[in-house]
Amino acid sequence: MDNKQKNAILLLHCPDTQGILAAVTDFINVNKGNIVYLDQYVDYVNNVFFMRVEWDLNQFLIPSDKIEEYFQTLFAAKYQMEFSLYFSDIRPKMALFVSKMSHCLFDILARYTAGEMNVDIPFIISNHPDLKWVGDKFGIPFHVIPLNKDNRAELEKEEMKLLKEANIDFIVLARYMQIISPEMIQTFPNNIINIHHSFLPAFVGAKPYHAAYERGVKIIGATSHYVTSELDAGPIIEQDVVRVTHKDTVNSFVAKGRDLEKIVLSRAIEKHIERKVLVYKNKTIIFS
Amino acid sequence: MDNKQKNAILLLHCPDTQGILAAVTDFINVNKGNIVYLDQYVDYVNNVFFMRVEWDLNQFLIPSDKIEEYFQTLFAAKYQMEFSLYFSDIRPKMALFVSKMSHCLFDILARYTAGEMNVDIPFIISNHPDLKWVGDKFGIPFHVIPLNKDNRAELEKEEMKLLKEANIDFIVLARYMQIISPEMIQTFPNNIINIHHSFLPAFVGAKPYHAAYERGVKIIGATSHYVTSELDAGPIIEQDVVRVTHKDTVNSFVAKGRDLEKIVLSRAIEKHIERKVLVYKNKTIIFS
Amino acid sequence: MDNKQKNAILLLHCPDTQGILAAVTDFINVNKGNIVYLDQYVDYVNNVFFMRVEWDLNQFLIPSDKIEEYFQTLFAAKYQMEFSLYFSDIRPKMALFVSKMSHCLFDILARYTAGEMNVDIPFIISNHPDLKWVGDKFGIPFHVIPLNKDNRAELEKEEMKLLKEANIDFIVLARYMQIISPEMIQTFPNNIINIHHSFLPAFVGAKPYHAAYERGVKIIGATSHYVTSELDAGPIIEQDVVRVTHKDTVNSFVAKGRDLEKIVLSRAIEKHIERKVLVYKNKTIIFS
Amino acid sequence: MDNKQKNAILLLHCPDTQGILAAVTDFINVNKGNIVYLDQYVDYVNNVFFMRVEWDLNQFLIPSDKIEEYFQTLFAAKYQMEFSLYFSDIRPKMALFVSKMSHCLFDILARYTAGEMNVDIPFIISNHPDLKWVGDKFGIPFHVIPLNKDNRAELEKEEMKLLKEANIDFIVLARYMQIISPEMIQTFPNNIINIHHSFLPAFVGAKPYHAAYERGVKIIGATSHYVTSELDAGPIIEQDVVRVTHKDTVNSFVAKGRDLEKIVLSRAIEKHIERKVLVYKNKTIIFS
Repeated sequence: MDNKQKNAILLLHCPDTQGILAAVTDFINVNKGNIVYLDQYVDYVNNVFFMRVEWDLNQFLIPSDKIEEYFQTLFAAKYQMEFSLYFSDIRPKMALFVSKMSHCLFDILARYTAGEMNVDIPFIISNHPDLKWVGDKFGIPFHVIPLNKDNRAELEKEEMKLLKEANIDFIVLARYMQIISPEMIQTFPNNIINIHHSFLPAFVGAKPYHAAYERGVKIIGATSHYVTSELDAGPIIEQDVVRVTHKDTVNSFVAKGRDLEKIVLSRAIEKHIERKVLVYKNKTIIFS
Repeated sequence: MDNKQKNAILLLHCPDTQGILAAVTDFINVNKGNIVYLDQYVDYVNNVFFMRVEWDLNQFLIPSDKIEEYFQTLFAAKYQMEFSLYFSDIRPKMALFVSKMSHCLFDILARYTAGEMNVDIPFIISNHPDLKWVGDKFGIPFHVIPLNKDNRAELEKEEMKLLKEANIDFIVLARYMQIISPEMIQTFPNNIINIHHSFLPAFVGAKPYHAAYERGVKIIGATSHYVTSELDAGPIIEQDVVRVTHKDTVNSFVAKGRDLEKIVLSRAIEKHIERKVLVYKNKTIIFS
Repeated sequence: MDNKQKNAILLLHCPDTQGILAAVTDFINVNKGNIVYLDQYVDYVNNVFFMRVEWDLNQFLIPSDKIEEYFQTLFAAKYQMEFSLYFSDIRPKMALFVSKMSHCLFDILARYTAGEMNVDIPFIISNHPDLKWVGDKFGIPFHVIPLNKDNRAELEKEEMKLLKEANIDFIVLARYMQIISPEMIQTFPNNIINIHHSFLPAFVGAKPYHAAYERGVKIIGATSHYVTSELDAGPIIEQDVVRVTHKDTVNSFVAKGRDLEKIVLSRAIEKHIERKVLVYKNKTIIFS
Repeated sequence: MDNKQKNAILLLHCPDTQGILAAVTDFINVNKGNIVYLDQYVDYVNNVFFMRVEWDLNQFLIPSDKIEEYFQTLFAAKYQMEFSLYFSDIRPKMALFVSKMSHCLFDILARYTAGEMNVDIPFIISNHPDLKWVGDKFGIPFHVIPLNKDNRAELEKEEMKLLKEANIDFIVLARYMQIISPEMIQTFPNNIINIHHSFLPAFVGAKPYHAAYERGVKIIGATSHYVTSELDAGPIIEQDVVRVTHKDTVNSFVAKGRDLEKIVLSRAIEKHIERKVLVYKNKTIIFS
């Protein structure tokens, strides 16, 4: 047995009633789990209780493969909970989708190779060959699948096959400029992370920097969100902004925007990997 | 004659050609004007030259009341310029329009009474009596004109009469919750400053904080802009933002937003008073 | 009996051991308190558990005036807790200390008169008469106590008498430019809030804007902190910053700084009033 | 002859007197230079005039290799100017110094390989072999020179030889954790760019994140500056900040800081490459 700490991470939500938090923490304590993180939040508008708790499994009395069943039986049924259970020693598998722009890809791979992202990246998919050299540099398989709006139905099958074979947990669209089909979205609900190059909901759709320039805004932004069937309307994970002036051009919007996009996307990925994002009614609870 | 420095401020734009800046600065220098501020900007997309120059009139050879005529004759005609000339010793007259919320009004009056705003405020107009006590505190006439969408045509005449009698130069809508008629907008082109409580162009129109809350944004904003005939679509003067989280409610959006709104509006007013805003094609050049 | 909700607010910290959170929440639940806010945090460096919990007392079985005693006996002794108990229907009494600058004072009074601050302000103290008119405008007693470094010992006694008579809970130094004596600090531990016009710990002491200008920084800041015996070194409650450029002067630093100072100070006051600040080892835990 | 536009870039400062700007722009216009950028700034405290002007050389009457001489004779001598002249088609040569941390290095190389930085990078120098693989990935020579405080005098000679042979124009310390000798600083005055992982002047020297954590700040920063003989006290080029809370640890300060550091350093490098930085009395004028 290794010495590395193995934690269980539990994310849950349910109708808010008295005693849930005490019940859950008591369950963990009684069974000798040492809580290392606990955060909870009550949405008083919708009357929903949200919680993230993480505990050390070292002396936990319930075997890891039984925790889900026990928790379902003892609590989830009783409190009408929806919950997810994760283990810190299981690295999620992330697929990267890119097109022609390299900044987000480089930012992710730099963190990945520096050991900052607790994730596996089995492969990169692109609809263009332009960035294959980046995959090659970092030794990550790079599949060119020249998908476009005319062949989407067919080529997405190919993508889905790759995703399935590699047991991909979630997808990151690192400036991937193609629509994702409803089928793929349904296969990866709240598991496809996009970066949109505007401060959503301003400037939905194509060419947001041009639109922002036309409008004469004084601040531009970037938004990372989960992909849903409605374009650029999924749950927002992270946003950030930077000032611009009348001296900026569309080109300098694009240049400033690159730094925003890569940082915002990487922050969102990290929150997702750390299991600190909970989606409820098209909004996110981001545990800190 | 007083010792206080009197400056001329010239704002202009024209098609960009060689030598304009040299010609204008030469004109000022030759006539013994001491330039104390000069900034210029060329919009290479539209090929337009913009300039703000301010000079000390102390030894200037051309009498103040002749500068406009001379400049028109010598330069404006030649270079197809549009220009505005101001004098630093003439305080602009600002009318405040408010409804029920006090935060922007207080922020403006606090700066005004502390001598931070080089402006006169002859009166406040409101469609509600709620804030009359604030006007009274600060000794500023407060006109309650209960305008609404049904009586707008009639009551705006009353407002226009007040504005005209006091020689008002520009109007500030300090969370005034009424539409301004096209007639009033035409009478005060690029001289009606509004504060909209969102990061425009996101959440145009009523209840932007509710809309932002519904959308689940992670950042909210405020936007100060000149009023044009299209709702919330006029030239943006200033914007700023603040982070929110899932823990925020519509009420806390409103509370955080108040601080944004008042600061953004006051910054816009100050830029306007300092003659550092130039409007071109529904966008602003903000000289620093 | 009135219909207004009355809440108890409990702030505590203690050595971290298993089961504290469950014990405390269970105590509240069992006695029919409805928890409306709960946040906890564990400092794993110092191994300390921090918690803020707020519950509706409407059906709580323990009388309000007995809660402190019960909690001390049942939990605080057992877990070596330090705790504070507050009730939401008791408005804290805040004394304002000012000198000559009005911006922070106006910002606080604007919020106060608009009903945004759940606090009483029995009086304002100043070492100069300059801002007496502001107190008069808002109908708040304004005591001019011309304290300086030579007469501090004597005149602070006068101040202490006023503070005691009015049962002042905490003091806000709204750009009050005098040193506070160790005696007064000890009388109001973690209850004197200062605003320092720099991004601490940069530019401690006098004339921080001049120092920042000399150093050529690209960002200036403001810091609100509790006053301790060491100058500008107390626990930081809130900080914020704004960009400056080479075009800024000391005067424009001061002007930009005013907006920072007032917002940062008011945010800190609000956190203090809401009992969301917990001080531990010269640092603050700020509950959100 | 190629079609690519070749521009001259002139940076200058001199005592402020009337007519400089007109004289310089006139000189360019008269000789058929098309000005594509002009910005000027007057420091009224020190009474110094600063200017950056860029013009298209396509039809300029003075040969490129004579401009410096002519300008010196005609203007610089007369106005006691200090000036620098650059040509847009000559890419500066930049040496990268690194130690063990990869985030800044990756960020620079990602921009470089994407063609976003108009610079050549002949080699990377490190005092550790740890990042050699990164240089190898990007095909950039990586010299391991195991310099430390005991062998600095000797090994810096080796570095200086490399820098000289490659005609290096400026050096970027991309989290290089060694002191630079006065000799090297004098050889590259205002041409060694460092990134310091704090909001200077707070937390000068080693371990600033630890110091920031100890102080309990609510915002951390990063600062890029030119290296001078006084540690962390050179002219500041760029700074930026990010919020932290009591929940952050030294490790999360470090993680958040990495994103700040790389963006701030890359922004500073870009300003330097674009010849938009002018140093005067240990401060920078940053043209936009």
